[in-house]
Amino acid sequence: MTKKSDYTKIEELGEFGLIALLTQEIQLQHEASEKGIGDDAAVLDFGVRKCLISTDLLVEGVHFDMAYMPLKHLGYKSIVVNLSDIAAMNAHPTQVTISLAISSKYSLEAVQEIYEGMKLACKKYKVDIVGGDTTSSQSGLCISITVLGSAEKDQITYRSGAGVHDLICVTGDLGAAYAGLLVLEREKTVFLANPGAQPDLSGHDYVIGRQLKPEPRLDIVDLLKEMGILPTSMIDISDGLASELLHICSESRCGCAIYEEKIPIDEAAFSLLEEFNIVPHTAALNGGEDYELLFTVKQTDFEKVKLIPGLSVIGHITDESEGAAMITRTGSVIELKAQGWDALRKRDNI
Amino acid sequence: MTKKSDYTKIEELGEFGLIALLTQEIQLQHEASEKGIGDDAAVLDFGVRKCLISTDLLVEGVHFDMAYMPLKHLGYKSIVVNLSDIAAMNAHPTQVTISLAISSKYSLEAVQEIYEGMKLACKKYKVDIVGGDTTSSQSGLCISITVLGSAEKDQITYRSGAGVHDLICVTGDLGAAYAGLLVLEREKTVFLANPGAQPDLSGHDYVIGRQLKPEPRLDIVDLLKEMGILPTSMIDISDGLASELLHICSESRCGCAIYEEKIPIDEAAFSLLEEFNIVPHTAALNGGEDYELLFTVKQTDFEKVKLIPGLSVIGHITDESEGAAMITRTGSVIELKAQGWDALRKRDNI
Repeated sequence: MTKKSDYTKIEELGEFGLIALLTQEIQLQHEASEKGIGDDAAVLDFGVRKCLISTDLLVEGVHFDMAYMPLKHLGYKSIVVNLSDIAAMNAHPTQVTISLAISSKYSLEAVQEIYEGMKLACKKYKVDIVGGDTTSSQSGLCISITVLGSAEKDQITYRSGAGVHDLICVTGDLGAAYAGLLVLEREKTVFLANPGAQPDLSGHDYVIGRQLKPEPRLDIVDLLKEMGILPTSMIDISDGLASELLHICSESRCGCAIYEEKIPIDEAAFSLLEEFNIVPHTAALNGGEDYELLFTVKQTDFEKVKLIPGLSVIGHITDESEGAAMITRTGSVIELKAQGWDALRKRDNI
Repeated sequence: MTKKSDYTKIEELGEFGLIALLTQEIQLQHEASEKGIGDDAAVLDFGVRKCLISTDLLVEGVHFDMAYMPLKHLGYKSIVVNLSDIAAMNAHPTQVTISLAISSKYSLEAVQEIYEGMKLACKKYKVDIVGGDTTSSQSGLCISITVLGSAEKDQITYRSGAGVHDLICVTGDLGAAYAGLLVLEREKTVFLANPGAQPDLSGHDYVIGRQLKPEPRLDIVDLLKEMGILPTSMIDISDGLASELLHICSESRCGCAIYEEKIPIDEAAFSLLEEFNIVPHTAALNGGEDYELLFTVKQTDFEKVKLIPGLSVIGHITDESEGAAMITRTGSVIELKAQGWDALRKRDNI
């Protein structure tokens, strides 16, 4: 273990010193990234393709808890949530800018850990870091990422294109990231009550991985293109299935009917959620942070989407007058409401 | 005066309600802004022009003090500092994304005030607000702005293009924003000691305006183009003349020689700084936040730049071996050092 005195105070470096250190190994991978870090602005050349931009702000104590979020994972995840927004447009991320506000409780080594995770995610998904800002904060850590993406004009998929009878598809499984959060919060409570206790995370690798190290479904964007499927609408699942479905319905001016039994939930997550006395489907609908893709396709694409590994067709789009409905296992119809994790409310509103 | 109970708590609205309210009147002005707020990402079409991107993070207690920063001015200034970065590339800003982390001490009305100032700056400088993120924070306010700009390829001006014998030009005057800060801080101290006292800001309109409501020098970008002047290097003065000059010298691998007597300082700011026992040239060199442009031009452009209103030619570029030098009124040569306002250090290091 490194002694406390081995850590470097950020004040000793100053802003420019810190930026130089954090960004020294950043190499640009895209031809479009003409000029990266080091001037007043980066210069990007998108030629005749379309440029997409999205931004996310992550705040300590609101979006992440340093008690169980390893720094490298925090960096990785903060990039991933942004890349996922570009995947949700059926496009590819190309560049990011990274801004950090850091309080004096963080050492240089801590900030480097965060940056390592960011660089790892950017390398994995071939995204160039082209700029940013680094400053101090009076308390806590604040991470602001802006991501740019690129797509051919006719490939971009908005939330607004769903039509009646379109099939509603979701990738992977839902609710596991929330189950992972519950495990981590339980162990934190145990630790606070008894600081000598070792965290019991055994057997929960999958759900903890879903919470701490989500991945953007850019593989699905590639696969859809290869298979010649152009979704009619698309969104990523950050707040929970219900909230995202309502966004599509509202933007596309339509209703939806989904079937409870079709909602994909991982087996381990299912039992764990029951252990926590949470109805697993409630976690899938409202837990959020799964970063899977939710999209609609024309019925004529059914034979094709069936072939996508791990994809579930969970329902179809209806007329706006029919509202957003879920048909339960027993055949009753309930109205979908967005109870998703709202960053401005407390986290326990599930 | 509005009663405290008339203010709206942000929690009552939720994130989506707040975003809807803040962004309801935003209209897009650029053809390139194909899709703004309302999907996972904005869609921009830059055709064959180059796209520029820059980002800034402003933190309460570090970059601004709510004790004397009116909310609307804060919003306005947070946009301006970003637009200034694009001006510093000899380009025009076109779109911004706005992210806010807000603590519960702020009411909806307070956040709307900030947004009003942001919208005002965006309207004035014809910039589209195309996205953002709004979240809570545990303490204080954090503002993250990313700006995109556009330019013809051969017009973009980097920090790296200055050559030996090029003339060093600076727009407007320097040090006044710092003088304004000193006045505001003095009145805050008086107010804290005696809350009944009225702030005495009379006669200090110019310097206070420079601190609270800076403007990006996009007029200079237009003028340079009209006059057929292409600067060899350019940067905006956010940290102070000395720090910015050193950036140009380092990126262009050159030295510089500037003349103390040529540094433009406003008369009112000059007397005020002396009143505060600050050497006015020290404030100009290291005070920062003036958001003027510092650029270099070929000597052959001298007759043209002379015609730019309010422009000062303060020196010339020298060989790298000669370092960064200032020739004082008495003819002695001193080495320029960056003592500019470093966001990671205390503010009083002038």
